[in-house]
Amino acid sequence: MLGPVDTIRWEGGRDGRLSLLEQTRLPAETIYTKIGTVDELVAAIRRLAVRGAPAIGVAAAYGVMVGLRGAEECDPETLRARVREIAGTLAKSRPTAVNLFYGLDRMVARAERELAAGASSPATLDALLDEAHTIAREDAATCDRLGEVGAELLSSGMTVLTHCNAGALATAGRGTALAPVYHATEHGMKIAVYADETRPLLQGARLTAWELARADIDVTLLTDSAAGSALASGVIDAVFVGADRIARNGDVCNKIGTYSVAILARANEIPFYVVAPLSTFDPELRDGSEIPIEQRPAEEVTEGFGPRTAPDGIRVYNPAFDVTPAALVTAIVTEQGLVREPNLTRVEEVLRRGGRI
Amino acid sequence: MLGPVDTIRWEGGRDGRLSLLEQTRLPAETIYTKIGTVDELVAAIRRLAVRGAPAIGVAAAYGVMVGLRGAEECDPETLRARVREIAGTLAKSRPTAVNLFYGLDRMVARAERELAAGASSPATLDALLDEAHTIAREDAATCDRLGEVGAELLSSGMTVLTHCNAGALATAGRGTALAPVYHATEHGMKIAVYADETRPLLQGARLTAWELARADIDVTLLTDSAAGSALASGVIDAVFVGADRIARNGDVCNKIGTYSVAILARANEIPFYVVAPLSTFDPELRDGSEIPIEQRPAEEVTEGFGPRTAPDGIRVYNPAFDVTPAALVTAIVTEQGLVREPNLTRVEEVLRRGGRI
Repeated sequence: MLGPVDTIRWEGGRDGRLSLLEQTRLPAETIYTKIGTVDELVAAIRRLAVRGAPAIGVAAAYGVMVGLRGAEECDPETLRARVREIAGTLAKSRPTAVNLFYGLDRMVARAERELAAGASSPATLDALLDEAHTIAREDAATCDRLGEVGAELLSSGMTVLTHCNAGALATAGRGTALAPVYHATEHGMKIAVYADETRPLLQGARLTAWELARADIDVTLLTDSAAGSALASGVIDAVFVGADRIARNGDVCNKIGTYSVAILARANEIPFYVVAPLSTFDPELRDGSEIPIEQRPAEEVTEGFGPRTAPDGIRVYNPAFDVTPAALVTAIVTEQGLVREPNLTRVEEVLRRGGRI
Repeated sequence: MLGPVDTIRWEGGRDGRLSLLEQTRLPAETIYTKIGTVDELVAAIRRLAVRGAPAIGVAAAYGVMVGLRGAEECDPETLRARVREIAGTLAKSRPTAVNLFYGLDRMVARAERELAAGASSPATLDALLDEAHTIAREDAATCDRLGEVGAELLSSGMTVLTHCNAGALATAGRGTALAPVYHATEHGMKIAVYADETRPLLQGARLTAWELARADIDVTLLTDSAAGSALASGVIDAVFVGADRIARNGDVCNKIGTYSVAILARANEIPFYVVAPLSTFDPELRDGSEIPIEQRPAEEVTEGFGPRTAPDGIRVYNPAFDVTPAALVTAIVTEQGLVREPNLTRVEEVLRRGGRI
């Protein structure tokens, strides 16, 4: 367990078991779902049993191990082909969060490296498990660093607004947007959080409120629509959100509704911070218009919580993400330091420092 | 039935029966709740069985008749006192929508006038029922006029975004914000509507989507958080919303989330129109900061869909309304014409023209 919540578990060696904290059941139940096959992991990612860009990357890395169970017997060529096939399958689970591809790319690259160096299949599997553990540990360490860097933006008595869940549940560690809150709290600051409930799937109500309350942090829940009222009322000192993908010019793709919060923060002269590891940046994309936006099923909106709450047959517009233009972002908090007023030059600078380009 | 939906029914004479379309059960069931006492009406208004500023005003007027059942036997002094007491009770049902007080004031004034002129108690009751019917008929006629005036802002092929329900279900007629859509459609224009679901009580999903689909108008449902994405994507040509109270300077109080939509519309250079009868204006209030904002129970947010969707004991910020500054309003559509770029002078002008000041 690398963070305050055990989001993703691997038990045993290269033939071990993957299980995921079943986030669709929170806060009512804390249960773990065992993942026996790659297809089960794809399904779990799609139904958001595990979600949050960094956590998806870590889960996918372990997912490669799930797919390789019994591959000790394979010859190297077959093993190489299987790793690629598994990564290809997992890459199709969700389109937007770039960490998924980042985690899978690392697993594929490690397999290539080991096999090219003449490693046996069992040794390659051991190396791949080591790579997955490393990705998870690095993610947790990165969260700690994001917490440190971001906490410089906080002082005791502040109230921050957050959207969706970019906390421990979204990572293998203590989260991205919430890491500065955890860090500041540990260092004796009193930080309160307003958590947007985040329709349609209520990650704010079900997950952010749950993990903050569990950590004894002062948390207030509000509907997404009430965020404007809260921001205009003077009660909010800063906004902290995570990201699913950040383009080279600093445009930020994150959970649907983030753009609204950014516009409202700007209108009320409240700083808007994005907290994200460098693995969330996509240097291939010039700007946010190139980020693929996942459209989710209508039923999430019309019958998200059991009873149907809209007329039968109604058309639904249900994008899972939106893009906040870089110009609305006060700073991006990365493990390589703050990127204030992000633009192409400043983002390239931090990516170069972090070895991403 | 004065509009496309029979929101409020009075059957019989001065001893007749009030029943309300039970809007909490839509869209699953279309049932009517019989209102036997004033307290039952207060409870119905509070649980939003009837909602929407104009509809609350009409329901309250009929509510006075419910409280006066059997009052034929009263002497004039007792009758006068009873009317005032009933109006006082109903006035406490909800604090924000000014039409409630407007409707009650008219009933009290009519009773005073009749009794001062020496009318008998039975004759006064007949006059009061006539007043309630007149309020309902005037509301429906005003909706028609709002439709005509507002339709000037539409042209065929346009898509409008609306928030909450300011349609037939919110009035005794064809609505406020939706009246221009109904009017334009009847006159052969093709208008599509994006309906914000409007958490916490989903009036957009349950009511607006229902009444528009029923009228064969092209409607798309979206979460409140997705409105920013829709407005930024270029698919929306204009925003039309209703109002619960408008201050003398043109600040608009409406369903929570309206302010966010206004800010997002402005940021994307999309016109933001408020459609409201003059009875929704409150000439007593200098600006929006003086409008009392109702705080609603936490359970609307934490268990609005049945099962609990947030941790036990969580604090909730749940204001029912917010205030949109006049500067964000492109125009207010009234039965006395458009008030473009509303400010104190222009609002006073229209109120004077309509005899409200």
